Amino acid sequence: MPPFCWRLELSWLGTSFVGWQRQARGSSVQGEVERAASAILGGETVTVKATGRTDAGVHAAQQFAVLRCHTPRSAAELRDGLNHLLPPDIVALDVQPAPADFDPRRWTRSKLYRYRWLVRRIPCPFRRDRTLLWRRRLDPAAMHEAAQALVGRHDFSSFRATGCAAHNPVRKLVAISVAPDADEVRLDVQGNGFLRHQVRIIAGTLAEVGRGAWPVDRVAQALAAARRDAAGPTAPAHGLWLMAVELGPGPRAD
Amino acid sequence: MPPFCWRLELSWLGTSFVGWQRQARGSSVQGEVERAASAILGGETVTVKATGRTDAGVHAAQQFAVLRCHTPRSAAELRDGLNHLLPPDIVALDVQPAPADFDPRRWTRSKLYRYRWLVRRIPCPFRRDRTLLWRRRLDPAAMHEAAQALVGRHDFSSFRATGCAAHNPVRKLVAISVAPDADEVRLDVQGNGFLRHQVRIIAGTLAEVGRGAWPVDRVAQALAAARRDAAGPTAPAHGLWLMAVELGPGPRAD
Repeated sequence: MPPFCWRLELSWLGTSFVGWQRQARGSSVQGEVERAASAILGGETVTVKATGRTDAGVHAAQQFAVLRCHTPRSAAELRDGLNHLLPPDIVALDVQPAPADFDPRRWTRSKLYRYRWLVRRIPCPFRRDRTLLWRRRLDPAAMHEAAQALVGRHDFSSFRATGCAAHNPVRKLVAISVAPDADEVRLDVQGNGFLRHQVRIIAGTLAEVGRGAWPVDRVAQALAAARRDAAGPTAPAHGLWLMAVELGPGPRAD
Repeated sequence: MPPFCWRLELSWLGTSFVGWQRQARGSSVQGEVERAASAILGGETVTVKATGRTDAGVHAAQQFAVLRCHTPRSAAELRDGLNHLLPPDIVALDVQPAPADFDPRRWTRSKLYRYRWLVRRIPCPFRRDRTLLWRRRLDPAAMHEAAQALVGRHDFSSFRATGCAAHNPVRKLVAISVAPDADEVRLDVQGNGFLRHQVRIIAGTLAEVGRGAWPVDRVAQALAAARRDAAGPTAPAHGLWLMAVELGPGPRAD
């Protein structure tokens, strides 16, 4: 085990990345952070692990990752070095020493995801890569009501990607809200862990309610069906934001 | 004179353009709008004129321009066609029929420009192309106080680019304010017309006050000197936003 353990607090605009995870081709956030860290550490090969993956095009206002290394550096050297070497769409907000057993995925207490619809006929040049342009009607009150059926501990088989590799489809959602904010509608989902595409399928399903194609109670029925085809479509990645991650020491209890 | 006259309401993210005006090389907002309009109009050659120029990298939340043409099209055809053909960083917010004598520059009653400083040590990946990252202190109260010396009708020779071609250096500023907004400091400048680089030099000069390098009353002295070298540096273009333009019929009175 390398002697030094660092907690990286990262933020990125996801538009130009293939997602968090290293891929055979394309620029990944993980790959960029590892490459920059390696350069700062005199060429030492490092692996950086986050609290989870994010899809291509998804943005992160806050994400945590662990960096273990043999090469001594100060927290400020790492932070400033990362911000000097990383592509400008990825920022190291903070670097702090972490306990040797720091495990971002297992230490995650909760995550807050946000989905943003831009509800107007005409695009906005400043938000085109960070919201989903929605030219139809979208009823946030009906979406909010429908979403409440998803709060709590449930089998979310209807709300995970067909290729999702998780053994257990049960997850606990702590809170869900849908509310208008100026010309946007925002979905906030808080939970302790998420299945692949879970928030994007929740967003795509609630949009069916919001545009009037689904009655409110069909979301509860979709959840109960525990079949992917009972839920709505997967909303595009570029409207999704990982807003905040709450960490605590040790594996979570539930 | 072509029989059809349209008022275009435009908005753009300025990062990837050489500015409003067509240039020998590089993509300009004017050139892109003219090219898209020409395609919609069956190849008719058109010239589009705005209320004024903006520099490379400057953003526009609202700008108006005139399009005169011989080819009949509806306002919706023009608007939707422009948004279909323009680069996605330029948006036609609205297209309306305009009186035959519509002249955006002469019809401008006031313009509101905003300059945004992002005051923090660490960059923000979501605002790097739309704010100036400012890692030092910046005192908005002192800047606001200093800025008030610029309100009114003055010879702004100290606050225009050396190459500014305007015959008359007198302009009237209606209002100036500097205020914090979360982790930003924002300068709002309203006037009926601006000299080349005027707002950027005002921003750069007020930043000298804000970082404590200049006393508040030196801004009034810089104005009175009527020499470019009496004012501060020209602030970078990417922090500048044309926020709103107010139009009225006919040449303005003053």
